[in-house]
Amino acid sequence: MQNKKWGEDQFVESLAKLFPSSKGIKGIGDDTAVIPAEGDRAWLVTTDALVEGVHFLKEQISAKDLGYKTVAVNVSDITAMGGDSHYAFLSIAVPRSIGSSWAYEVIEGLKEACDKWHIQLLGGDTVGSKGDLFINLTLIGSAAKSRIKYRDSAQAGDVIAVTGYLGDSGGGFRALQTKIEINPDARYLIKAHFRPEPFPEQGKWLASHPAVHAMMDISDGLDCDLKRLLKMSKKGAFIDINQIPISPSLSTVSKEKGWDALQLSLTGGEDYCLLCTVDSKSFESLKQAFQQQFKHTLFAIGYIDQSTDQLVYQRNGTVFPIHYSNFSHF
Amino acid sequence: MQNKKWGEDQFVESLAKLFPSSKGIKGIGDDTAVIPAEGDRAWLVTTDALVEGVHFLKEQISAKDLGYKTVAVNVSDITAMGGDSHYAFLSIAVPRSIGSSWAYEVIEGLKEACDKWHIQLLGGDTVGSKGDLFINLTLIGSAAKSRIKYRDSAQAGDVIAVTGYLGDSGGGFRALQTKIEINPDARYLIKAHFRPEPFPEQGKWLASHPAVHAMMDISDGLDCDLKRLLKMSKKGAFIDINQIPISPSLSTVSKEKGWDALQLSLTGGEDYCLLCTVDSKSFESLKQAFQQQFKHTLFAIGYIDQSTDQLVYQRNGTVFPIHYSNFSHF
Repeated sequence: MQNKKWGEDQFVESLAKLFPSSKGIKGIGDDTAVIPAEGDRAWLVTTDALVEGVHFLKEQISAKDLGYKTVAVNVSDITAMGGDSHYAFLSIAVPRSIGSSWAYEVIEGLKEACDKWHIQLLGGDTVGSKGDLFINLTLIGSAAKSRIKYRDSAQAGDVIAVTGYLGDSGGGFRALQTKIEINPDARYLIKAHFRPEPFPEQGKWLASHPAVHAMMDISDGLDCDLKRLLKMSKKGAFIDINQIPISPSLSTVSKEKGWDALQLSLTGGEDYCLLCTVDSKSFESLKQAFQQQFKHTLFAIGYIDQSTDQLVYQRNGTVFPIHYSNFSHF
Repeated sequence: MQNKKWGEDQFVESLAKLFPSSKGIKGIGDDTAVIPAEGDRAWLVTTDALVEGVHFLKEQISAKDLGYKTVAVNVSDITAMGGDSHYAFLSIAVPRSIGSSWAYEVIEGLKEACDKWHIQLLGGDTVGSKGDLFINLTLIGSAAKSRIKYRDSAQAGDVIAVTGYLGDSGGGFRALQTKIEINPDARYLIKAHFRPEPFPEQGKWLASHPAVHAMMDISDGLDCDLKRLLKMSKKGAFIDINQIPISPSLSTVSKEKGWDALQLSLTGGEDYCLLCTVDSKSFESLKQAFQQQFKHTLFAIGYIDQSTDQLVYQRNGTVFPIHYSNFSHF
């Protein structure tokens, strides 16, 4: 119960109430804060913490991947608003038991990711810790104010789409937890877990299209995150289970190991692909242009509806109830 | 040795080498990063982490004071550049063993401090933790670019001055550690430790005077921080031990308890007052104007010199060697 009270959503809601935004500023509640700058520009700011034993196990993830992932998950938030990433600020709390070489490898991974996405690290705070390893990154990006996509703008009839396969990271996590043999499929899943790839170009491209109404990234699983979007937009949705994009690797390993691939794809978490809602009249042409631009699919998975305020899953035209508990790491 | 390698200075230096600044941006190495904005404005960004068992003991500090202090130490960094604080982003990792009411009290203290310094909290990430309580705040402020004071601008002959008493927080910390009886003097010291008061108005005022050449805040003790300023400015300094400002309360308690008040004032840490260097020709008039404006003293404690690249302490005209180890919390 105490743990439940510490649920992120409730806490963030209470913070949002205590600290209301003002003067054209968008504060707590979306993927990033939005601070107006000169002309049509706005700053986007996000902060994400990764804690040992909660978000990662030091025995599993390499130091370099951890550094890389720390940047990637923040880039995904800036991407979800349609922005570019610019400046990063790192805090790292390291227990004495960890060798400095391990910690410097974290920085190498961080550097690799910063170089990849043209990010400058402008500040660092390093502190000791009693026992846990803790990494926090604050990332500042920017976007054209008029193009920023929020979670609260889904409209009735919108097609709901995602930019990538769902459940790969969750599958990689399960592969690690259950210590399955590492064949190429398992390796692909584990890489998706340790080296998530956000969709920055896709995010900017989607943001430049007025037919895209709402957007966010999927960090805690489609089920959890789509519910957040629906709540902000005050809408309901129907999702077609058959349309959920599942990668060949996840499909193969799931069959071999008896995993529920659907569960992983809905609640596995850490997908870091984009979830958007698109004007239904424009969707087919947008999807084609997306395919041409990025050589991969924008997957339609359902639609926004006002006849319900719920998230309803369907299969072959009938309601498909799911009772999965949401993603949590350990 | 391993721990030594994890010293903040060495780590920050290696980060600065890996991530050089560019395009008029000032990155790692000062109190805040400086990012040019429109016209003469610049954004100032700082991030600070507080870790249970390293920076505070949950059994000692009240949740509300912890929230307050988290904001205050970041405001002090913005202040040290001569800026105003605007937007805060919080990450908090809370172990399950901590009741949610305690955590919400942290937020109350945070809110009190944000209201006091006109700061909007625009983002929050809350996560679980295995064992340690961890709080990180990123604070964004702004200043007129032409007025920002850096650590690297001290000039030979400058008077070195501080805006407040040194060692009070260190004394408060020792009072807690040694469990002395709580009389009004001890209470004053403990309050200085739990509720540090930065000098935002003084910072802006000093920044507006061209005679002030370099500025920083004292977070790790005068000895440690002045050495950082000297290193950045490539200068040495003479400090007159007799001029170190020690509060009546620290003086009284130190006499009673046999504490070395000088040691606490040089290495106690967490003073969060401002350290600046001022053109010697202008110092007396600046000091008088400061006194008139703020009703308290700008304390001259020594001067910048090029005849040495060291920090030299003197008493009554002769060198006064000190061999204190630097501030560390626990």
